[in-house]
Amino acid sequence: MDRYLVISSDCHAGLPPEQYREYVDPQFRDAFDVALPIQIEATQEAAKKFLVDDINAEWRNGQEEGLTGAWDSDARLKVLDRDGIAGEVIYPDGITEMNMPPFGAGISLPVEEVVPELQWAGARAHNRWLAELCQMAPERRAGMAIIPLLWDVDQGVQELRWAKQNGLKGCMLPVLWGKLEGYDHPKFDPFWAECQALGMVASFHSGPAPMNDYHADNPGMIGFYISEVCWFLARPLTAMIWGGVFERFPDLRVMFTEGTAVWVPEYLRLLDFRYADTPYSAKLGDYTSHMSMKPSEYFARNIMIGASCMPRREAEMRYEIGVGNLAWGSDYPHPEGTWPQTEGHLLETFMDLPEEELTPMLGGNLVQLFGFDEEKLAPLVAQIGPEKAAFRSSA
Amino acid sequence: MDRYLVISSDCHAGLPPEQYREYVDPQFRDAFDVALPIQIEATQEAAKKFLVDDINAEWRNGQEEGLTGAWDSDARLKVLDRDGIAGEVIYPDGITEMNMPPFGAGISLPVEEVVPELQWAGARAHNRWLAELCQMAPERRAGMAIIPLLWDVDQGVQELRWAKQNGLKGCMLPVLWGKLEGYDHPKFDPFWAECQALGMVASFHSGPAPMNDYHADNPGMIGFYISEVCWFLARPLTAMIWGGVFERFPDLRVMFTEGTAVWVPEYLRLLDFRYADTPYSAKLGDYTSHMSMKPSEYFARNIMIGASCMPRREAEMRYEIGVGNLAWGSDYPHPEGTWPQTEGHLLETFMDLPEEELTPMLGGNLVQLFGFDEEKLAPLVAQIGPEKAAFRSSA
Repeated sequence: MDRYLVISSDCHAGLPPEQYREYVDPQFRDAFDVALPIQIEATQEAAKKFLVDDINAEWRNGQEEGLTGAWDSDARLKVLDRDGIAGEVIYPDGITEMNMPPFGAGISLPVEEVVPELQWAGARAHNRWLAELCQMAPERRAGMAIIPLLWDVDQGVQELRWAKQNGLKGCMLPVLWGKLEGYDHPKFDPFWAECQALGMVASFHSGPAPMNDYHADNPGMIGFYISEVCWFLARPLTAMIWGGVFERFPDLRVMFTEGTAVWVPEYLRLLDFRYADTPYSAKLGDYTSHMSMKPSEYFARNIMIGASCMPRREAEMRYEIGVGNLAWGSDYPHPEGTWPQTEGHLLETFMDLPEEELTPMLGGNLVQLFGFDEEKLAPLVAQIGPEKAAFRSSA
Repeated sequence: MDRYLVISSDCHAGLPPEQYREYVDPQFRDAFDVALPIQIEATQEAAKKFLVDDINAEWRNGQEEGLTGAWDSDARLKVLDRDGIAGEVIYPDGITEMNMPPFGAGISLPVEEVVPELQWAGARAHNRWLAELCQMAPERRAGMAIIPLLWDVDQGVQELRWAKQNGLKGCMLPVLWGKLEGYDHPKFDPFWAECQALGMVASFHSGPAPMNDYHADNPGMIGFYISEVCWFLARPLTAMIWGGVFERFPDLRVMFTEGTAVWVPEYLRLLDFRYADTPYSAKLGDYTSHMSMKPSEYFARNIMIGASCMPRREAEMRYEIGVGNLAWGSDYPHPEGTWPQTEGHLLETFMDLPEEELTPMLGGNLVQLFGFDEEKLAPLVAQIGPEKAAFRSSA
């Protein structure tokens, strides 16, 4: 094969909000009708705080058809083909401010100011539609079911089983737990057990942070937010490592997506330092004997980083992060994504890296993680995949 | 001089709780009497969650006299002398679970489940006592006034002026702001202006984190807490940098204490990356034009790290963090501190580092920051300071 199999660890899909109606359980459709205009307005307001209208509009100019791929299967395939991407992992929130699932079931999955029963209903509606979308090109799509797990572990297990039965490949869980119990708590064990048993990947997608902390009075509000949002994404990982989750579920695989990867090496050194025998441990008692491995060892075994729009610097840090723990992503159809110039971005990030390292980071790691079928994808890759020779500057 | 002037950036002092009564404003003494037994019990309960009784007891065995230095000036001087420490910066909470100021005015300075008016009263009581303690050895002690600033900026300014007039050298502010407005908000400008005008150092001391997130059901609870507590300490810094605080107040100096320093280089790279022109900036609008410098440049100019019990690895990272931004600390009288074997710790951390770098990190940086008088301290240093020759393995 003289071309790379490229799979994006981070793509998004979602329906125009009114079209979710038919996927909502009938008993929630009245609530849906009431909530729809409120949701549309609230979503646009939130987007205004964090997106600049005219820049977004300019960026989208000429991309109208490609953007319909946020929900249209054929349009989506065309975009991915042109971009050289054979497979993708699909999260919610297609076009950021236009395609959120109903009832607060989008990427932010808030645990405040939402009705749990409705959030579940919104998640199930999205999952039903997503399962249909994935069935239209099952060899190319790994859909992530939305599971607002924090409210109810049993319901989470049920929804995970439904997702598995309907061809989805993993789930997306809430990043922030507010005043609820977090992911270190043993009460989530039945859910991790089920993920492990079914081979479903649990995942967290960056974005959530305490949004009320970002004041419009601060002209640097956006800088504040984007500087710390990755730490909120890392919190579930910290909780799970110390909670012993990966000790009890050695085959559980968890993906952390679009939170950058530059923080990983120092983060792991800090956790390993805390794990090692230090003056702290004496004072604070035993907090490690339930863990047979160092935090960095659990990371190496159990974690995948969804490295959206991976910059060159992260590629240079690949040995510290783990070549087997990095999965490049395009973030289609978000405007900060590499789309529609993915190949240029790939060359910038990966030029002159060895083929045996590019193969896993560009797609091979996700083949292993989600069970993409390389043989089935081979004819497509032969047509659309980026040529390996292009990644050698001497060539 | 053949000995180093050593100043600890991180020491603690506090009265046995009942002795704070006379320092509390008379109108709050009835409340004090009611709160005292509740506070003692709550503090001990909290300590049990995070400290192991018998290990603590064993550690303290034989240290009884030294521990009374938490509140007794003479005992304190003896301990510091024996430890080779000429000067110190003094935070509250002497012996962790025994010497907290009343009404929730200790290091954690919570903004939930406290009465603001009482927390102010507790802070003022401590500040009065601390001012007395510092006056007993003013050339050796830089006391940090407790200021629960988040409730009321005007009151914060008043308390800062009182502290300055009474010989204190800076203030300690709450790390967590909960649902209140955080440090990026321009409403705090009058306070930063006053700190700058008076030459008072603003500071944050590590410890606070969302304690309810650390479940006793998790045997790794302590690891979870100590792995992320430094990120909560970094939040005020992130807020202030992006809020433009250091742009508007170029002479404001802020110290971050006992939060480790290993995270600093990667943190600054991340902030600088966010500040630089990236695909994010286009989508998200202008969030940098109010800042004339990179985040790392503000850090270099305005920030001091109180590097408590600094490990060798942080000393090795000194160029990335900044030799002028690191101030070693002993954490006396906390059990994780270097006391009473400070010289051994210093040798382990700093062996064979050049004298011109050790001089600022061991004390010179704090001379500049707090105005310690080197000439007055010189005779003491000549007696108790660690010998420079001991730090050269070839010697």
